[in-house]
Amino acid sequence: MSEAITASLNDLLNASSVAVVGASADPTKVSGRPLAYMLKRGFSGNLYPVNPGRDTVQGVKSYPSLRDINEPIDLAIIGTTADKVCSIVEEGIDVGVKTFVVFSSGFAEVGNEGEEMQKELSALAQNHGVRILGPNCLGIANSTSNLIASFTTALEEHTLQKGSFAFISQSGALGAYWLDLVLSNGMGFSQWITTGNECDIDAAEALDFLVDDPATKVIGLYLEDIRNTFAFRKALQRAAAAGKPVIAIKSGSSDAGSKAAASHTGAIAGDDSLYDACLKQYGALRVDSLTAMMNVARLFLYDSVPAGNKLAVLSVSGGAGVLIADKSEKLGLALPDFSEQTKSTLKGILPGFSTPNNPLDLTGNVVQDTESVYKSVKTAAEDPEVDAIVLFVGLMHSIADKVTDALVRAKQQINKPVILIWIGAEQNTLALTDKAKIPTFADIPEAMDAIAQALSIPEIQRKAAASRVMTTGHAAAKTTHAITEWDAKQKLFSQDSISLPSSVLLRPGERAESLPFPAPLVAKIQSTQLLHKSDAGGVILKIDNLEKLNAAIENLEAKARELNLELQGVLVEQMVPFEHELLLGLRRDPKFGPAITLARGGIEVELDPDYATRLLPLDASQVQDMINSLRSVNRLQGYRGIPAVDISAVAANIAAFCDWFLQEHTLEEVEINPLAVKGSLVFALDALVEISPDTNSK
Amino acid sequence: MSEAITASLNDLLNASSVAVVGASADPTKVSGRPLAYMLKRGFSGNLYPVNPGRDTVQGVKSYPSLRDINEPIDLAIIGTTADKVCSIVEEGIDVGVKTFVVFSSGFAEVGNEGEEMQKELSALAQNHGVRILGPNCLGIANSTSNLIASFTTALEEHTLQKGSFAFISQSGALGAYWLDLVLSNGMGFSQWITTGNECDIDAAEALDFLVDDPATKVIGLYLEDIRNTFAFRKALQRAAAAGKPVIAIKSGSSDAGSKAAASHTGAIAGDDSLYDACLKQYGALRVDSLTAMMNVARLFLYDSVPAGNKLAVLSVSGGAGVLIADKSEKLGLALPDFSEQTKSTLKGILPGFSTPNNPLDLTGNVVQDTESVYKSVKTAAEDPEVDAIVLFVGLMHSIADKVTDALVRAKQQINKPVILIWIGAEQNTLALTDKAKIPTFADIPEAMDAIAQALSIPEIQRKAAASRVMTTGHAAAKTTHAITEWDAKQKLFSQDSISLPSSVLLRPGERAESLPFPAPLVAKIQSTQLLHKSDAGGVILKIDNLEKLNAAIENLEAKARELNLELQGVLVEQMVPFEHELLLGLRRDPKFGPAITLARGGIEVELDPDYATRLLPLDASQVQDMINSLRSVNRLQGYRGIPAVDISAVAANIAAFCDWFLQEHTLEEVEINPLAVKGSLVFALDALVEISPDTNSK
Repeated sequence: MSEAITASLNDLLNASSVAVVGASADPTKVSGRPLAYMLKRGFSGNLYPVNPGRDTVQGVKSYPSLRDINEPIDLAIIGTTADKVCSIVEEGIDVGVKTFVVFSSGFAEVGNEGEEMQKELSALAQNHGVRILGPNCLGIANSTSNLIASFTTALEEHTLQKGSFAFISQSGALGAYWLDLVLSNGMGFSQWITTGNECDIDAAEALDFLVDDPATKVIGLYLEDIRNTFAFRKALQRAAAAGKPVIAIKSGSSDAGSKAAASHTGAIAGDDSLYDACLKQYGALRVDSLTAMMNVARLFLYDSVPAGNKLAVLSVSGGAGVLIADKSEKLGLALPDFSEQTKSTLKGILPGFSTPNNPLDLTGNVVQDTESVYKSVKTAAEDPEVDAIVLFVGLMHSIADKVTDALVRAKQQINKPVILIWIGAEQNTLALTDKAKIPTFADIPEAMDAIAQALSIPEIQRKAAASRVMTTGHAAAKTTHAITEWDAKQKLFSQDSISLPSSVLLRPGERAESLPFPAPLVAKIQSTQLLHKSDAGGVILKIDNLEKLNAAIENLEAKARELNLELQGVLVEQMVPFEHELLLGLRRDPKFGPAITLARGGIEVELDPDYATRLLPLDASQVQDMINSLRSVNRLQGYRGIPAVDISAVAANIAAFCDWFLQEHTLEEVEINPLAVKGSLVFALDALVEISPDTNSK
Repeated sequence: MSEAITASLNDLLNASSVAVVGASADPTKVSGRPLAYMLKRGFSGNLYPVNPGRDTVQGVKSYPSLRDINEPIDLAIIGTTADKVCSIVEEGIDVGVKTFVVFSSGFAEVGNEGEEMQKELSALAQNHGVRILGPNCLGIANSTSNLIASFTTALEEHTLQKGSFAFISQSGALGAYWLDLVLSNGMGFSQWITTGNECDIDAAEALDFLVDDPATKVIGLYLEDIRNTFAFRKALQRAAAAGKPVIAIKSGSSDAGSKAAASHTGAIAGDDSLYDACLKQYGALRVDSLTAMMNVARLFLYDSVPAGNKLAVLSVSGGAGVLIADKSEKLGLALPDFSEQTKSTLKGILPGFSTPNNPLDLTGNVVQDTESVYKSVKTAAEDPEVDAIVLFVGLMHSIADKVTDALVRAKQQINKPVILIWIGAEQNTLALTDKAKIPTFADIPEAMDAIAQALSIPEIQRKAAASRVMTTGHAAAKTTHAITEWDAKQKLFSQDSISLPSSVLLRPGERAESLPFPAPLVAKIQSTQLLHKSDAGGVILKIDNLEKLNAAIENLEAKARELNLELQGVLVEQMVPFEHELLLGLRRDPKFGPAITLARGGIEVELDPDYATRLLPLDASQVQDMINSLRSVNRLQGYRGIPAVDISAVAANIAAFCDWFLQEHTLEEVEINPLAVKGSLVFALDALVEISPDTNSK
């Protein structure tokens, strides 16, 4: 992002002079709250209420209009009716206001008339170099400067606790819930940004700004749509490079899969898979609720993300220890055996009948000997095989303070994360553990889910930071059309990462005079009116002599007449022996640009989908990760007499093919199914290609 | 369960005269708490402290020994050191005490010596017809009579709120956490039973008792093991027939799958799959945490389980409505379109710009018009397509009472469940909705998970109630051994639900004089030393003439010599054409008795397991449910040129085969892989049979 853009968002989010247009004297009214909130929390900059009917508003000198202020204004807050917004912004532009927050609703969200007004607003921003947040947004809050350009009721009661968690929300309501949760839970925040209808500033820009915001360490997102997916992934990647975790909720997954597509790719990997790929591939963790977001964020905010997946589980209840082990196994978390030294030290700490296993049963003995918590946490943390301690406690209200104190002391002496699960903990206990930056959970599944999710982030961010990213898209063709397999394969001849079987096209009426290639052969009807040839009987396999070949051609020509097809001819191809089959689908999505779907091939493609979708470009190692993410990868690794595939070589071939596709702008969609795989070789046995109409092929 | 057993547990759980052996004058001591708790909560029966050193204990007349009481005693509570327990129980038996609760630890859980003492205790119960709960348990509590034979700290502070939720726990700690949670959440309870080491009374008996307990409507279980799986499933089934939901946590799932087995069945479906089958098949819902248990239970306790899966989702935030729709889709919950009448009524209630979709966006307008909550909930509930209302609210603290009041009034006028999700709700709001029996959740995923899980229970209980159940097991053979495929198939000839291909055994050195059956044929080495024949090259396929057959036999005999096998001969079989393959595994588990595993067959059996495990006996409809639960069922339903299977007929054949297996006591394990399927026919193409040593076959 250019420095100019960053600076312009800085004028908004770190504004030091703020005008409030239409500021009400009533601090409880929507139009009175921003001023009231900032006065109460002590905004560090200058405030200029604009209210033509009053000399002062809430005790602050008021101005009849923006024009009358005669001071530099970083930000003007506008919450009037929709029809007045444009003229106020114009006035602001005239007097040098740099940025605007527009709360007003009645724009694109209500349909045509509002859409027109929103376009006007966008044009004002674009033409005059000012920046506008909204309309129909809940504004912003900045806990460093106590800037509150918002009327959210979430700020009515809470004090504005500083923290390093930031949030960008396309929904005002979800934004308000987030703010309420972080302030109720004592997590605090840095910046809070709701982008509303995004007539100018969008979530991608806000994200990009936060990557450079020194107060922000962890970023939460609530997304309903991504307007500029290229800017968005670039911003995500910058966050990844900066090591700032991004935790995202993307709503609307249930709209997925409804696309009626000629290809299997579209059927198995709908729109949501592209959003999902975009988030994961560029380093964001996708979660499904604000609660899950808080749980993961807390681990980062409290510097409590384990360096690896090896946990020491200590529990006052043996049963709970086993439940934690069960859940850990499901999530890929390990409970390593303790070292001999650890075991021997633990034996000296625990009552005689205990055995120093992992999970470790501290037993009810903790009630008599709270110090055993201190000692065993410290001992487990010293084990070199252990990345973090998970301590389980339940009830124990009467000795809660002593247990907490023992744990906090232990935590201060070790340099590994301690995560606490305390069923039925009291508020007082939670306050103490929060103060000591010990993330505390109310039950086992949420704790272990959060640990597993947090653990995944550094790795996906590392990969995201190293990956290539496109900066602009490709204007999707308005209409496209499919070409025959023969024509498709002619196009594929210009690359050499995916091999093609020897083939020849016999035009209608043409017959073979000899076997064109060694048998066995396959013959296929070629017509743009019959793309799924096998199902219709348009393919004849295992042809092993000339007589059978010409009979097959005759047969297929008859089939074409029967189906009344415009026939290009019959494709005759050598059958290639292979051991594995994949589906490879490449398409240019209007929103996300070029994307790839790799799936288990064969007739099961749609039956029990096993696929991975990513956005292009991809390196070979990323394609290898995709293959490894398929459930059926273990087939490819060789099994029971079926030879293994050279996955790394295959991935390199597919990655090279993707790069070729990126350059072939006339190809809208390429689906190779099956992509036959044998050793390190990949063959396109069938190909479905859609091209844009401007570049027809005959 | 016999009436005598039920009566004996009644003496325990509804005891009206209770002796407390070793009762302490200090109400805070472990030995003082049961008496203190009962005095404080007003136990409705008689209390007899036993303490030789005092005339009164905590103000109640005390006795030097059980013998001195001279009154009928239903229950004696014992918490002495382990070594004294047996003699106290003996004394109690002498003076007619009917039941005992033994808190004392130091029994089987500490190893050999303790195990011996526990056996003595078991023998006392068995020989004298008294009942013993424990040892090493946390006792019982009954909110109807205020009987508290427990020293759990969970009862220190809470009042003993009556409710209809009961809990049986094999862990004292988990029991205590449960009690704390239901009492903190205001859900109340009926009976609370911790069974500890189960020297006599086990979880199955306790469950059986609760089925007939009039105060109990919903039953929770925490299980670490099931001692008598036959009594347990019978009790589960009785709960199902009584329509009392059972929600179970079973710990130890991560121990599964470690069994080193000759069969695939053991490898893909470990011990945990049998526990899982036992719970699900007889009507219990398995959950993974106490929190999840509470969430589901609350829906039943508040009569808020929808009659079907069709939800009307009403939300004050459009974004949250979409998140609910996303989660619903993932869980198989439907959001039907509203009827025209509903839409038209809603239009009159909502602000002009809203559209009456499902999910319905109530918009921020609710702040001005809380009555719109009342009207829209009522309207949606009147829609015949709607089974329940899910209302989402966030924040709104200033109008929380008004919104809650509107909702409660609506709820009173409709006869469909209302489930509330309120992010950031205050305690006061929760108290009001609890009072109105409106289940309220803090975020979306937990609410929707609970709804989906609760919805599944009536159906699984209906099926469980209708299913056959075994009452006793089969003493598992100590050692078993595998027989050859030929011998195995000879055994299978005594049934006719699964067909066998035509086959003949050629003894070592023997050659065929003509093709025994029409080609193609398959020839397979027969030796108990080579059970997985294909991997070792012991199978030759597609033999189509006599010469090839004898060459194959020669070849296999050479292979047998090379591998130094004791050769039974070469099995020659006609190859049967088939379209689908399954794996059918039957085994006699030492704990659960006969069980079946059905899996997708072929080489993928272990690669990407797709299987279902159930306990026998099964009806055809249950086998059909198993088949339908496989991911690969859609293959069986026919796809892209592959004909469909007659699933109902195949299920009937498999069920009949299972019944045959139940009668064939010498068969320890039968694995048919592949089980070839074509239309309604099933063929055993290969069979691995383990028999018990007492019934050898040659």
